[in-house]
Amino acid sequence: MKFKKILTIGINETSLNADYWKRSDSLAEKRISLAKDSLEIKMQLKDTDCLLVNPFAFKVDKEIIDAAPKLKYIGVLATAYGKADCEYAATKKIAVCNIPGYSTEAVAEFAFGAILEHLRDLERAKTQARGGDYSEATFSNTSEIKGKKFGVIGLGRIGLRVAELALAFGADVFFWSRNHNKEAEAKRIKYQDIETLLSECDFISLHLALNKETEFFLYEACVEKIKSGALLLNLAPNELIDYNALEKRIAIGDIVYIMDHTDELMPEQAKRLLRYKNCIMYPPIGYTTKEATVKKQEIFVENIESFLKGAPMNKVN
Amino acid sequence: MKFKKILTIGINETSLNADYWKRSDSLAEKRISLAKDSLEIKMQLKDTDCLLVNPFAFKVDKEIIDAAPKLKYIGVLATAYGKADCEYAATKKIAVCNIPGYSTEAVAEFAFGAILEHLRDLERAKTQARGGDYSEATFSNTSEIKGKKFGVIGLGRIGLRVAELALAFGADVFFWSRNHNKEAEAKRIKYQDIETLLSECDFISLHLALNKETEFFLYEACVEKIKSGALLLNLAPNELIDYNALEKRIAIGDIVYIMDHTDELMPEQAKRLLRYKNCIMYPPIGYTTKEATVKKQEIFVENIESFLKGAPMNKVN
Repeated sequence: MKFKKILTIGINETSLNADYWKRSDSLAEKRISLAKDSLEIKMQLKDTDCLLVNPFAFKVDKEIIDAAPKLKYIGVLATAYGKADCEYAATKKIAVCNIPGYSTEAVAEFAFGAILEHLRDLERAKTQARGGDYSEATFSNTSEIKGKKFGVIGLGRIGLRVAELALAFGADVFFWSRNHNKEAEAKRIKYQDIETLLSECDFISLHLALNKETEFFLYEACVEKIKSGALLLNLAPNELIDYNALEKRIAIGDIVYIMDHTDELMPEQAKRLLRYKNCIMYPPIGYTTKEATVKKQEIFVENIESFLKGAPMNKVN
Repeated sequence: MKFKKILTIGINETSLNADYWKRSDSLAEKRISLAKDSLEIKMQLKDTDCLLVNPFAFKVDKEIIDAAPKLKYIGVLATAYGKADCEYAATKKIAVCNIPGYSTEAVAEFAFGAILEHLRDLERAKTQARGGDYSEATFSNTSEIKGKKFGVIGLGRIGLRVAELALAFGADVFFWSRNHNKEAEAKRIKYQDIETLLSECDFISLHLALNKETEFFLYEACVEKIKSGALLLNLAPNELIDYNALEKRIAIGDIVYIMDHTDELMPEQAKRLLRYKNCIMYPPIGYTTKEATVKKQEIFVENIESFLKGAPMNKVN
């Protein structure tokens, strides 16, 4: 079985390498690729049965689904599928498939890279050495992960992997999640209520998926509870946090905030945050490794193949 | 029991905090502190029974030991004691005590900080974001530790801890050491002969103590065997490696070398190495964390106390 027409929206030609485009294209009679703001979108949706989207560029809402009466499959080129109206798609018997887990290791490794980079002041150290100054005198106030309290909010694949690595570093590891998690608890990753976790942990790493329930999960009262001196790491969407409250807290200067979803900030907001030394901003590179990129493309195409074989993989609705 | 006189050589007043100086000073009738190149050294040694030295600044050789006929105790303010003539001291019944293990976590955490900083190009990423560019486009060629071959040379405390963390990251971990190590092998840290380790591992981390047997351990033929594309991390003394051969290899550009004993390089050598982008130089900050600094002072003073109580700790000769 094959699709009649694949329509891609907001997916760059470079997002998949040639081999994966070839495999994907072999699954339909034709493919049309549109930019996220193309005027042709609704017209092209009319006879599309397979829609592939970059969910960060393009929102698949009711209106889009209603414009595609033949639609059977929505492939999301990301783990996050919160911006697609999955429930509404389900009422129309349209499968939504995402790409879980491809970036688990990439994000978890990045988390410890970014934490250690900050703790050990690596950028300043490299710069100093490059200038020919090999003195360690100003690096005596750096600290270790071992023995500290490390809190993980959201214990999906990435959160669990971060928690495991924190354990390996010798931290005392806590998590908050909607549900208890026996697998984690057996490994000495301890459940803690969110208020205690925020007010007691030295490191707090946020790994919730964004959806209606988690939007603004860290609202003002939560942000105020974060332990003075703590490091808050957010490699997840910014919408999980009340950024007004967070900015106020960053301005006080008693927490460190490390983030990588900088591309989703408003330009004015980004400029304001850049002024704070205790706000460490990366481009969104937590998930970008060679290994993750290969896995992502593999799963994305495999999802379409599996759906066509009648055994859908990674269906989220 | 107390010492008559503590003589310190090359130890800054700031190397111990006030409380530890107080504890140490309470163990002798007096203390004299000299710079490493003081002309008074031999004169002061005459009635010294307790010598405390910074082994990186000052070498305790036969001549020094012979100049101190009353000497009973040499306290080395470091883990490395290779620069003191421990065997000769033993023939004179002088105990040499070092400070093992205080920096194990600091160095192991730094190792992964420095590796991940390089793998994920964190300095460039921060600089780019600071300039307002939040694109991930140029970070797609970064890679993960997971699944790679990770070789540890020297399986002392630090080497073992680095190997354990590499395992936690999901690497395939190998070690070379003078002796097999059942504890390590039970954890899937596999013994490998040095040639195979060098030629097959993607990451090679050097953790040998410096002594007569390990000086130039990585001689020319070894340096040539290092796998093309590998990352060699050296947080141990530079004398473990034939630096002429290493410079030649760095110049070829097919390996990455990360080091932190930059303060021990000759100025000309440091300048030459700085030219290579694949040679990443840090000040000697692998072992400098608040936690390690406290542990170091604690053990240094405890060693003297224990010796005076007749139950010497951390005696190395």
